[in-house]
Amino acid sequence: MANDFDVVVIGSGPGGYVTAIRASQLGMKVAIVERELLGGICLNWGCIPTKALLKSGEVYETLDHLADYGLSVEKRGFDFAKVVERSRKVSAQLNAGVTFLMKKHKIEVVEGSARLESGQPAPQVVVAQKAGGSRTLQAKHVILATGARARTIPAIGLAPDGERVWTYREALVPKAAPKSLIVIGSGAIGIEFASFYRALGSEVTVIEALPRILPVEDEEVSKAAHKAFEKRGLKFRTGASVKKLAKTATGVSIDIEADGKAETLTGDVAIVAIGIVGNVEDLGLEGLGVKIDRTHVVTDAHGATGVAGLYAIGDVAGPPWLAHKASHEGVHCIEHIAGVKPTNLKAPIPGCTYSNPQVASVGLTEAQAKEQGIEIKVGRFPFKVNGKAIASGETEGFVKTVFDGKTGALIGAHMIGAEVTEMIQGYAIAMTLEATEAELHATVFPHPTMSEAMHESALDAFGQVLHT
Amino acid sequence: MANDFDVVVIGSGPGGYVTAIRASQLGMKVAIVERELLGGICLNWGCIPTKALLKSGEVYETLDHLADYGLSVEKRGFDFAKVVERSRKVSAQLNAGVTFLMKKHKIEVVEGSARLESGQPAPQVVVAQKAGGSRTLQAKHVILATGARARTIPAIGLAPDGERVWTYREALVPKAAPKSLIVIGSGAIGIEFASFYRALGSEVTVIEALPRILPVEDEEVSKAAHKAFEKRGLKFRTGASVKKLAKTATGVSIDIEADGKAETLTGDVAIVAIGIVGNVEDLGLEGLGVKIDRTHVVTDAHGATGVAGLYAIGDVAGPPWLAHKASHEGVHCIEHIAGVKPTNLKAPIPGCTYSNPQVASVGLTEAQAKEQGIEIKVGRFPFKVNGKAIASGETEGFVKTVFDGKTGALIGAHMIGAEVTEMIQGYAIAMTLEATEAELHATVFPHPTMSEAMHESALDAFGQVLHT
Repeated sequence: MANDFDVVVIGSGPGGYVTAIRASQLGMKVAIVERELLGGICLNWGCIPTKALLKSGEVYETLDHLADYGLSVEKRGFDFAKVVERSRKVSAQLNAGVTFLMKKHKIEVVEGSARLESGQPAPQVVVAQKAGGSRTLQAKHVILATGARARTIPAIGLAPDGERVWTYREALVPKAAPKSLIVIGSGAIGIEFASFYRALGSEVTVIEALPRILPVEDEEVSKAAHKAFEKRGLKFRTGASVKKLAKTATGVSIDIEADGKAETLTGDVAIVAIGIVGNVEDLGLEGLGVKIDRTHVVTDAHGATGVAGLYAIGDVAGPPWLAHKASHEGVHCIEHIAGVKPTNLKAPIPGCTYSNPQVASVGLTEAQAKEQGIEIKVGRFPFKVNGKAIASGETEGFVKTVFDGKTGALIGAHMIGAEVTEMIQGYAIAMTLEATEAELHATVFPHPTMSEAMHESALDAFGQVLHT
Repeated sequence: MANDFDVVVIGSGPGGYVTAIRASQLGMKVAIVERELLGGICLNWGCIPTKALLKSGEVYETLDHLADYGLSVEKRGFDFAKVVERSRKVSAQLNAGVTFLMKKHKIEVVEGSARLESGQPAPQVVVAQKAGGSRTLQAKHVILATGARARTIPAIGLAPDGERVWTYREALVPKAAPKSLIVIGSGAIGIEFASFYRALGSEVTVIEALPRILPVEDEEVSKAAHKAFEKRGLKFRTGASVKKLAKTATGVSIDIEADGKAETLTGDVAIVAIGIVGNVEDLGLEGLGVKIDRTHVVTDAHGATGVAGLYAIGDVAGPPWLAHKASHEGVHCIEHIAGVKPTNLKAPIPGCTYSNPQVASVGLTEAQAKEQGIEIKVGRFPFKVNGKAIASGETEGFVKTVFDGKTGALIGAHMIGAEVTEMIQGYAIAMTLEATEAELHATVFPHPTMSEAMHESALDAFGQVLHT
């Protein structure tokens, strides 16, 4: 039984399955353990199905502005069950895609819940199989990619009840769109659901404990997003702490306190989106002496946990809780194990919120750069004077860039507007290549595109903006 | 009168007015001469108003696929006059924007037609003013940015008649959408009009003399575009030469020959989109001894014409006929004159076609790279297996990348699909920074985005693709 596998990956979200694929490409014999659905939360209950819902919402909202484009319809409508069904089909298609990829790369899929027991050269993986029975896998390397789940606080009612209090999971498959909705938490997940349900006509109020929404974003982006969302009819309570969520005869009642003043909000449904906790439980980590900080496994720069042969990547190894950070860490970890090439751990991790308007960013915010004592140059360019944005009727938002004033290095970029989630990769490439303003200025951006605002923002930081 | 200005720019398209702005930023006293509308063809009769039309067409076509998203409308319609009016308003807004920018940068706008006469240190610019009278401007440097216009062949009927035979100019402002339309030429301009009118329901046939449509694009892209457009009901005749366009009682009749076989096509209207000729006439260039090659002014790498103090940039200085190439050349030219910094003439020039689906590319096609004897590695990734594309219902198209197999340098990228015109800048940045596959592999692309296909394509070229 010794060394059945070169690698066993526990968890099959993008971090897990991408790691398994890369390991297979590197010639390793690989198994992947999944207790639920291949593709994990991201494919089945996260990134992917929400994007399907958001697309339906976005198109539906466009129907309200057709006259702007010289178009008309007589009556718009949606079939909520079909909107949800489409989202589930998208997830099912991607789940089947991962199944195909596992087969193609000869990765053995073991369905069940894994538990680690001490072993050599790596811990043994004991799987309580879905099909019944237990199976023990011995590998040279074990990679934990067990992901994370919604944070809840049952003591004050912030926990799903499957009916009127939802996490992302319930929010993806309700029977009907609620008439009124309270979203607790204004990070990417909370804002995306708020944006989607508002698009379909729900009355939505978002509660945020911090002073501003999308609190990890640059302050100017938070402010612009707040304004843009309010224009769409979303309501906000910022700097507001939730004291108690209670169920009423018809919905929910939430006691909050903001600026020392108490208020009670009521709605049909509440979504709890107050953060993420790593799945570190029931894995036998304590027995092995794995170091855990709050709800994530502590690792070194290459994912090693300190326990021989045991690594952790992705959400369970800590923030940012993003699928692309997980797969990046996974690829790095397995390439490091294989010793095949120098890898890039310093790669900047972009973040996206697929609301209307969209938000995307990479690197340091202006405030973070200042906190680090960097002498900065900041550039800005609004879409309202961008030709393509005007031609498309999508003039909301702007691009903000932060440069190191001494070296000229691009150290942060922040965007809000249409399609910015597809545009941010240009700055991610630039930062990975350690670009300075000189190279960004020299780059030819195609005209007419919204991406020209990326050029202009970099020009603006150095007093060379052309169109404002 | 000597040296009234540091720089006189002739022509106010993006190449011209951007050059004027940059000159002003560099402390120069600047005048710009425009015979028609500030912003030139691009803003008033080209890039910008077409994008406004295309957006209306794109949204209208979406209304045909609402059921895919769980949505419905009872009846879709368009008001063609309003579609056109919106497009004109967009142009008017940008034209006003350029007026504002000229004022802000203290650039004197001289309305009229310019003619050059010999002078020192640069040719004199004699303007036959719109308001009447003549005005002579003397500058240290004169920059020709007179642009280009549609190529016509009156001898065989390929010239606009303002009624049934159009160039881009007439095609932007017709009274009604033609029931049937024949587009002659399948470059970006022809394809964009074909795409727009098809979106509004016209029967459209496109004639291309070369063996494939979008002939400057990579062959695989041409092929995919052809197939995608046919799915939308567009018809094509490739390898077909136009013998004669004649007007009939109700429309046009076009004799073509393809594979030795003659055919006559009929339609309500024809659009002539067979290329571009530089505006080199009536400028007095012959008298000054300016070297002209076919219809463009010959320049050195910095835009100098060889005549003291006279430069040329943009369309009038030759292909590619793209606004961003013009402004890039203009900025380079004026910075070179000012001697302020090393500039980047080797910057790759991306090209975009805003049809449905969109096409975008930068650098060498696979065939061009092979012709140059480069040993290449080619990567491909289809959107049909990209999570965001599936979630958005926009799975058409792919990303193709061409690398130098020896150095790993990215030398070309070719994309077809939704929003690729906003994505291509990432590859333009990468190529400007002389990126190799290592940096592209190391870059973290946000999930879920269509831009992940850019990462996968680069991985595929080196046998490391993750999702196919």
